[in-house]
Amino acid sequence: MTVATQVPELEHPKKAFGWAARDPSGHLSPFNFSRRETGEKDVAFKVLYYGICHSDLHMAKNECGFFIYPWHEIVGVVIEVGSKVQKYKIGDRVGVGCLVESCRNCENCNDNLENYCSSFTLTYGAKSSDGSITYEGYSDSMVVDEHFVVRIPDELPLDVAAPLLCAGITLYSPLRYFGLDKPGLHVGVVDLAGLGHVAVKFAKGFGAKVTVINTSPHKKEEAIQHLGADSFLLSRNQDQMQGAKKSLDGTIDIISVVHSLVPLIGLLKSHGKIVMVGSPEKPLELPILPLLMGRKFVAGSGIGGLKEIQEMIDFAAKHNVKLDIEVIPIDYVNTTMERLLKSDVKYCFVIDIGNTLKQTS
Amino acid sequence: MTVATQVPELEHPKKAFGWAARDPSGHLSPFNFSRRETGEKDVAFKVLYYGICHSDLHMAKNECGFFIYPWHEIVGVVIEVGSKVQKYKIGDRVGVGCLVESCRNCENCNDNLENYCSSFTLTYGAKSSDGSITYEGYSDSMVVDEHFVVRIPDELPLDVAAPLLCAGITLYSPLRYFGLDKPGLHVGVVDLAGLGHVAVKFAKGFGAKVTVINTSPHKKEEAIQHLGADSFLLSRNQDQMQGAKKSLDGTIDIISVVHSLVPLIGLLKSHGKIVMVGSPEKPLELPILPLLMGRKFVAGSGIGGLKEIQEMIDFAAKHNVKLDIEVIPIDYVNTTMERLLKSDVKYCFVIDIGNTLKQTS
Repeated sequence: MTVATQVPELEHPKKAFGWAARDPSGHLSPFNFSRRETGEKDVAFKVLYYGICHSDLHMAKNECGFFIYPWHEIVGVVIEVGSKVQKYKIGDRVGVGCLVESCRNCENCNDNLENYCSSFTLTYGAKSSDGSITYEGYSDSMVVDEHFVVRIPDELPLDVAAPLLCAGITLYSPLRYFGLDKPGLHVGVVDLAGLGHVAVKFAKGFGAKVTVINTSPHKKEEAIQHLGADSFLLSRNQDQMQGAKKSLDGTIDIISVVHSLVPLIGLLKSHGKIVMVGSPEKPLELPILPLLMGRKFVAGSGIGGLKEIQEMIDFAAKHNVKLDIEVIPIDYVNTTMERLLKSDVKYCFVIDIGNTLKQTS
Repeated sequence: MTVATQVPELEHPKKAFGWAARDPSGHLSPFNFSRRETGEKDVAFKVLYYGICHSDLHMAKNECGFFIYPWHEIVGVVIEVGSKVQKYKIGDRVGVGCLVESCRNCENCNDNLENYCSSFTLTYGAKSSDGSITYEGYSDSMVVDEHFVVRIPDELPLDVAAPLLCAGITLYSPLRYFGLDKPGLHVGVVDLAGLGHVAVKFAKGFGAKVTVINTSPHKKEEAIQHLGADSFLLSRNQDQMQGAKKSLDGTIDIISVVHSLVPLIGLLKSHGKIVMVGSPEKPLELPILPLLMGRKFVAGSGIGGLKEIQEMIDFAAKHNVKLDIEVIPIDYVNTTMERLLKSDVKYCFVIDIGNTLKQTS
């Protein structure tokens, strides 16, 4: 076991301030730390909004071995740029997602797929290439290599842009890569929490017919009236599921607990696919014959590369794909954790850092 | 339970003769039956060779509910054509694979994917659209709609062509559809029985680097020296498997018993795929996180459509993809069943019907 030799405040030359959880309770409180000087290829920006991802909850509660809140949907305005920065200038509206570094040299990095680089650095709770920990607990500033910064178009409000940086790309990328981005296709979305609502919005943005599949009948009105899905299937209603057999070109499966793939495979047309973006702890049972009989597949997808994140943000701005957010002040953040546990949010919390984060120590 | 009202000899106007199994013992013996008249779109051909597929063994032993041997790799020479037949004439070298009918009207049929039509008729033990059973027990003649007949190019010996009609397309189609047909890709082949050897031959035909993955060390020499694979991995050797992690663009998995996908997913590069062509009786365990981390997928594929079968046969002729066959006389056929049970064949049995099938009753 290693023991930190430096306190966070003294590790880097620039003071920074935020809120963080420092024990497995997950309770957040004000936190002084520090940031590196703005390097020659770095962009420094004042943080204005953080999006809260449900995955953060697991991380904060130490289920994944981290104590630090892994906030990673961060937007703000550039306040300083390094001498070799080419794409950004002071005042630009920018964002950072899950990644702040990658090797920049492997096949995936060369293909703009930094998210599949085997040595990327997460924005949160990870060890940076300079040996320090990446603290992205709700803080007032960020310093990131410009390669990992994306531009937020003027049409897109910054608060609405925040959750796109992880939740948005998590759904946009598989819809694109697995060919579910063509108008007229019929796309299923399994589950309707935070990521599910993003899937519906982007699938509709691509012009698809969207069916939400859920275990709760009260989600039907929500899915159709509010989010604009075309139809709804109650997954435990055998008649509904049977009646919709072989109707979907593809399904985005967001469920992160063990569940049966059999009925979902049955909903697919020939050559259909299920793309998992949730990750159940235990393996799922995969029946092979139904895959063979229809040339179907079950895939996984994780976030997206920087080029595609920019493309997604631009697509959202152009096609008016706006996620449903609830903007909260920083001192409400511990309550959001409780509400997330009860899935009591429609659909993403966004913390107004610019107006509510005040240094108290 | 329905009882056949007609004896096979009298069901159709044309006499036919072959060998068939008529009880669950699977033992084959001479068999008189009948065939329909050659319809206006039909091609009638004298059968010269049958290929024996390992799946046949399961069928014959009644594991799938059939008593009739499902021979379905059939080649011969045209002896009669209907008035509206356009593609074939008497004397043409032709073949028939797994299918003899499909609806010709659904999306799959319109896309030349009759193999995924939900109402196709198998060449064997199935109910034809005229209500009769399709008897393809080793017989001396076939009558099939020309749409389901393929042409055997002159360069390809008929005996070598036979196993291409099922085994060949079973491997060619997924290699093509799932993009594993590009020179320089690295393709894994799991298992090295009949279908495995076909996978190696076609993958090499496409210009891939091929690694055979097998549980038996004695298959190494066979795979590399005899079949031309580039490398071999002993699947129970942890060091070998670990050393080959993230090396494959895709893997064809032919194992038809329950096995672990975890090490096979580990062998894939990012964006790699496992295509199952074997169908284990029980579901396999599918770990989701490794799929997400590399945008990988597990798919299934079953034979191919008629257009693609012709393309595959032409490819085999042009690129000299020749399967390894052991030609046998009809009276050896019961022994082949025993040898198949022991996997004692390199790699496909082909029955010389033209020279050895003699009517004895």
